[in-house]
Amino acid sequence: MKNYNISIIKGDGIGPEIVTEAIKVLNAVAKKCDFTLSYKEYLMGGIAIDTVGVPLPDETVKGVLESDACLFGAIGGEKWDTLPRDLRPETGLLSFREKMGVFANLRPAIVYDELVNASSLKPEVIKGCDIMVVRELIGGIYFGKPRENDGFKAYNTMVYTKPEIERIAKTAFELALKRDKRVCSVDKANVLEVSQLWRDTVNEVAKSYPSVEVSHMYVDNAAMQLVRNPKQFDVIVTGNIFGDILSDTASMVVGSIGLLPSASTGEKTAIYEPIHGSAPDIAGLGIANPIATILSAAMMLKYTLNEEKASDIIEKAIKDALKDGYRTKDLASFDAKEVLNCTAMGDKIVEYI
Amino acid sequence: MKNYNISIIKGDGIGPEIVTEAIKVLNAVAKKCDFTLSYKEYLMGGIAIDTVGVPLPDETVKGVLESDACLFGAIGGEKWDTLPRDLRPETGLLSFREKMGVFANLRPAIVYDELVNASSLKPEVIKGCDIMVVRELIGGIYFGKPRENDGFKAYNTMVYTKPEIERIAKTAFELALKRDKRVCSVDKANVLEVSQLWRDTVNEVAKSYPSVEVSHMYVDNAAMQLVRNPKQFDVIVTGNIFGDILSDTASMVVGSIGLLPSASTGEKTAIYEPIHGSAPDIAGLGIANPIATILSAAMMLKYTLNEEKASDIIEKAIKDALKDGYRTKDLASFDAKEVLNCTAMGDKIVEYI
Ligand SMILES: CC(C)[C@H](C(=O)O)[C@@H](O)C(=O)O
Ligand SMILES: CC(C)[C@H](C(=O)O)[C@@H](O)C(=O)O
Repeated sequence: MKNYNISIIKGDGIGPEIVTEAIKVLNAVAKKCDFTLSYKEYLMGGIAIDTVGVPLPDETVKGVLESDACLFGAIGGEKWDTLPRDLRPETGLLSFREKMGVFANLRPAIVYDELVNASSLKPEVIKGCDIMVVRELIGGIYFGKPRENDGFKAYNTMVYTKPEIERIAKTAFELALKRDKRVCSVDKANVLEVSQLWRDTVNEVAKSYPSVEVSHMYVDNAAMQLVRNPKQFDVIVTGNIFGDILSDTASMVVGSIGLLPSASTGEKTAIYEPIHGSAPDIAGLGIANPIATILSAAMMLKYTLNEEKASDIIEKAIKDALKDGYRTKDLASFDAKEVLNCTAMGDKIVEYI
Repeated sequence: MKNYNISIIKGDGIGPEIVTEAIKVLNAVAKKCDFTLSYKEYLMGGIAIDTVGVPLPDETVKGVLESDACLFGAIGGEKWDTLPRDLRPETGLLSFREKMGVFANLRPAIVYDELVNASSLKPEVIKGCDIMVVRELIGGIYFGKPRENDGFKAYNTMVYTKPEIERIAKTAFELALKRDKRVCSVDKANVLEVSQLWRDTVNEVAKSYPSVEVSHMYVDNAAMQLVRNPKQFDVIVTGNIFGDILSDTASMVVGSIGLLPSASTGEKTAIYEPIHGSAPDIAGLGIANPIATILSAAMMLKYTLNEEKASDIIEKAIKDALKDGYRTKDLASFDAKEVLNCTAMGDKIVEYI
């Protein structure tokens, strides 16, 4: 029987609760599909600071690199916000992404018919929407040098090289081939040199994908179009900071941030995590929504472990549970039949599997 | 009788049509309020390229600087998009902003009760929304150096100095004093050094405005919150590129981009323009909506010429015309009684004055 080694980072806040449910679901589907999973837990974020004094211990880096994939909860919290910058949970996260080489952050935004009222956008604007945002994750202004703040003047550098743009563009075009075959690249080429190189390179890569339609949009317009008519998009590919902003905007199309998974992939390993944060305000109350994390686990099965059938089973179980009116507290006002706590939602999804 | 010298830049596409209507309305209100306006026209953008070979003639720079304020239509069009970067209409626009020293771009996003259905957002989410986005306009990554694209590697620099942040923060706090007394500053201080200086400086400036509530939001969250619950905002202050993205997002709250004015102000002069572009596809058809430009003229009366009464009269005339069901083509599907062309809408607003 096939076995996969999964590294687990539960992190802070609601992290432990939601990851626990995802593991429960993973085990259920593994049994059904005849494979096994072994888990090893590692520290990161606030809990790592509290336990070993740094946000990203070497052991975590080593352990995750050796695993087949990493399932990640969430990190951070007010408690650590006043620490010096190099000791903050966010610094750990960025350095983790860089060390794992996960250059492609995939954020699907899919509107479920059952929850079409959960968005602040009109149902007719979002119904049937299915967008994949592909964000470059280990380059751009997040990592660009030089960077400095001397208290009077401060600056950062938004930088990309052609190979960096090529590999993320290829990821986007490959994904589009399996979807609606349309890639919209977002930049600010009317103002930025770095965006001009981005646009030129995307156009070059596009030549190898003649069956995929490529278009370009300025970032201000893209933000607007995501709100005005999100259904026009299939795959969106963009740089690190624009992707940070646009993927959050796209999440609002779906409405409920508790439903949104993500995958960060590269050549060495892959990290799967919900896009919501550690929500310290509701940690420990048992009311967190585990679905985004469970969907992240489903993405892991599909994209890294090639267990597509198992992935589909999880997705279907979630859809069915939602269709039958099972909701966590965050979704209670949208046609709920029964409101479940975090553990009960995990159990319910296992039932449907 | 008081006289004001107004420089006029009609620009490209629908620019000439909409500016003509705004001048008509300005003259009507001036008559009513006992002042006069003299106009001088200058070239910029595509028409300047076609006529004198550069997007921003020296004469325009000189003329606008000598005027009390500038009323601006729109520039650009596909025709000039393939020119070398330094000859493009956009380059002219950025250099114009810099030479005019207009560091503060004010973009109000006000939802009219009459058009509460025009947005892709649910009416209950936007009803009563009144946001002022204050965008820094002549700094940040738009103008930062070094900047380069050698075809393999390209970069831009996002830079701010403390005095640059101080003056835009002051503008935001002063505006908040006349509104709901809340300023939300948007940055990415958890990642960028330049944002940390931004945040620290805004906090320092805030000390001089104890009656104004200050808050901070990361740009990804702000984009999300603008879609989720825009009514939470009063004044938003942010840097050039974040402001570019967020003000376009905010415009979608209102829904109709044909209604949104803007002011760009500084110590030397001020430029008033609609936020929509030159819309070459509908130029000359007479169907453009002149309201955003007319509202820009109203902002000019209020913010630069201190003719607040005249400004209020224009705003009320527009509201009344909308209330009575007069619409341009872009708004025809929202409770229209009569659909007017561009000229007729200008005439109608003059009637209400
Ligand atoms: C926490 C922060 C550094 C991070 C980012 O900006 O990448 C977050 O917003 C995200 O999108 O994962
Ligand atoms: C045309 C472009 C350079 C400009 C900008 O990015 O500032 C426009 O988007 C705007 O917001 O006025």
